Amino acid sequence: MKMYLGINDENFLREKKIPMTKREIRILTLALARAYDAGIIVDIGAGTGSISIEAAKFVPDGNIFAIEKNLDAVEILKKNLENFSVDNVTVINSEAAQALKNFSRFDVAIIGGSGGNLEEILDAVDEKLNAGGRIAANLISIQNLSTCLQWFKRHENYHYESMQVQINHFNQVGVYDMAKAANPICIVIGTKD
Amino acid sequence: MKMYLGINDENFLREKKIPMTKREIRILTLALARAYDAGIIVDIGAGTGSISIEAAKFVPDGNIFAIEKNLDAVEILKKNLENFSVDNVTVINSEAAQALKNFSRFDVAIIGGSGGNLEEILDAVDEKLNAGGRIAANLISIQNLSTCLQWFKRHENYHYESMQVQINHFNQVGVYDMAKAANPICIVIGTKD
Amino acid sequence: MKMYLGINDENFLREKKIPMTKREIRILTLALARAYDAGIIVDIGAGTGSISIEAAKFVPDGNIFAIEKNLDAVEILKKNLENFSVDNVTVINSEAAQALKNFSRFDVAIIGGSGGNLEEILDAVDEKLNAGGRIAANLISIQNLSTCLQWFKRHENYHYESMQVQINHFNQVGVYDMAKAANPICIVIGTKD
Amino acid sequence: MKMYLGINDENFLREKKIPMTKREIRILTLALARAYDAGIIVDIGAGTGSISIEAAKFVPDGNIFAIEKNLDAVEILKKNLENFSVDNVTVINSEAAQALKNFSRFDVAIIGGSGGNLEEILDAVDEKLNAGGRIAANLISIQNLSTCLQWFKRHENYHYESMQVQINHFNQVGVYDMAKAANPICIVIGTKD
Repeated sequence: MKMYLGINDENFLREKKIPMTKREIRILTLALARAYDAGIIVDIGAGTGSISIEAAKFVPDGNIFAIEKNLDAVEILKKNLENFSVDNVTVINSEAAQALKNFSRFDVAIIGGSGGNLEEILDAVDEKLNAGGRIAANLISIQNLSTCLQWFKRHENYHYESMQVQINHFNQVGVYDMAKAANPICIVIGTKD
Repeated sequence: MKMYLGINDENFLREKKIPMTKREIRILTLALARAYDAGIIVDIGAGTGSISIEAAKFVPDGNIFAIEKNLDAVEILKKNLENFSVDNVTVINSEAAQALKNFSRFDVAIIGGSGGNLEEILDAVDEKLNAGGRIAANLISIQNLSTCLQWFKRHENYHYESMQVQINHFNQVGVYDMAKAANPICIVIGTKD
Repeated sequence: MKMYLGINDENFLREKKIPMTKREIRILTLALARAYDAGIIVDIGAGTGSISIEAAKFVPDGNIFAIEKNLDAVEILKKNLENFSVDNVTVINSEAAQALKNFSRFDVAIIGGSGGNLEEILDAVDEKLNAGGRIAANLISIQNLSTCLQWFKRHENYHYESMQVQINHFNQVGVYDMAKAANPICIVIGTKD
Repeated sequence: MKMYLGINDENFLREKKIPMTKREIRILTLALARAYDAGIIVDIGAGTGSISIEAAKFVPDGNIFAIEKNLDAVEILKKNLENFSVDNVTVINSEAAQALKNFSRFDVAIIGGSGGNLEEILDAVDEKLNAGGRIAANLISIQNLSTCLQWFKRHENYHYESMQVQINHFNQVGVYDMAKAANPICIVIGTKD
């Protein structure tokens, strides 16, 4: 399979209530997590699967595990996998912390959604993350951002970096190009020593 | 009348198709244009009247002229004036350049909408703007921003400053505060020597 | 004294190590805190005095108290007060929580700096804030933003709003206007029932 | 050579006067230009070579041509190529439009700097760009952004998308994480039919 990075958002099936990580955030998250250097990637709170599918295309030799507890989301996720003819993503319909216990190890964990259990998820990820592995979290609330930063501050065997990304797309309206804001997303990348 | 600055956006009647300048942009635009120091303020492309009403409350001793060519907008504008019990705003239902000819002079011109005639409007404003007067434009397209900056560069009897303002309100959703982006607005303030 | 709002940042004496609230943030903070409606305003962590002086000019009838524990900052603050010929600002060289005990009441508290004691300061402010009074905090770290939001969530006799403000000034470099980013600031405004 | 994406900015030799495209902008520009799908990539206004080297690592099978007219920049560029042990970048010390004439064709053109000749460069790029090829421009002035958008609007055999990217890195200062703004960059990506 040929490598690809930067799938258009419109190419994913979506449902209003299931949030989707946008293209530029997917690109930055996967690049900064050095997903291309990973054998096994877990996508936690996979939602409609946009991160899993992007990772599958970006890392054709990698094995991606899409963990999602919500059944409605899982159905859309599976349709998206089909539409993109992706064959290196395994769907796990389960609570994240529970699902992670069944892994022996992985190299990269992407946390897209945490359903209010971010700290528990970080602990569960830490248990199975290889040395040199990366945790990348996409955070939209101040509370989860703060929880994530404090977790990394407490875990001195990780170093981390974090940033807020704000993208304003210019919409083409007649002769004009007009900035249309996307909500800012915070990305935290922690690397295990 | 008591001075007031920073009316909540929800307090204005609006119509979907008629754009409205948001609270933080109104505050910054009026402060940076030093509206409080003006006798006569013209609000060009007044739309639903949010800038005119904000100016009327911020500068109770000033006379504000709300110029708007769209009849639908004028109707909402008038209802808003009534709801806010504002008595220092005069509505002019006309093309901007045409309306400006009837003024003898003014101190501050706010350009909220230009309907594709920004250059013509700037020329017409310049004709009647007092020495020391300010032009403040709120711009959402790259084309109008560029036109506005080039106009000021060509008119050496003005000095100007310009900025992009991006506000992310944190919405309170359960236990979370989540950033909700507003579209960025560019503000250009030119002062006539 | 005539009302004024939006002092240029260059008009303040500054010292590198003493941070200064920038013009657009001062304008928004004072407007959203409805400082114009306050008799007594306390400026906590006044630093070089930019907020106090802006408030003094914006609210000529108000009494502003600039609280600052750092002696070096207080000296610059006093020079700034002199340069701006401000006569409605009282300087208090003290720890914030200690200084606040000596007040009987006030209408608006601006928290510009908290020196690691944000929660203690919020508690001390709450003790003396009038009903209907406003607390406005300018926050630059995720930790203090989070602490502030959680404080307001716990205090149900307050309602609050919060936002991140990012200003990109366009610098004039030859024929170009080039965006120069200022660090984003979070503003939290709480109103006491 | 193994694929890599997202080189740390500190790993490049730099000189104050020679601007450098930052990591997140490099990642997004190369991904959105689909550099991974290109045989020949030209990097116009290569400066210190950060885009060329990033492209060389991201697309190990591609041939990258770094065009830079400034001799001082070329010297640093060459040192950077050496430090990164990159062997698929060719340096061309020349004016861009002149250098482009010597190509027979290429798949992707990245415009990082245009030295005031953006339109001439776009014309010269267009002459040699393969059908299906991409032009990606990184723009920091409103004037160049506007020129670039108008060029694409006039050339109907291209479709384009454009965006502003603003990254706030959180600096770790003691117990705090504090947003440090990077200047916003506009990215315009045009695809030739």
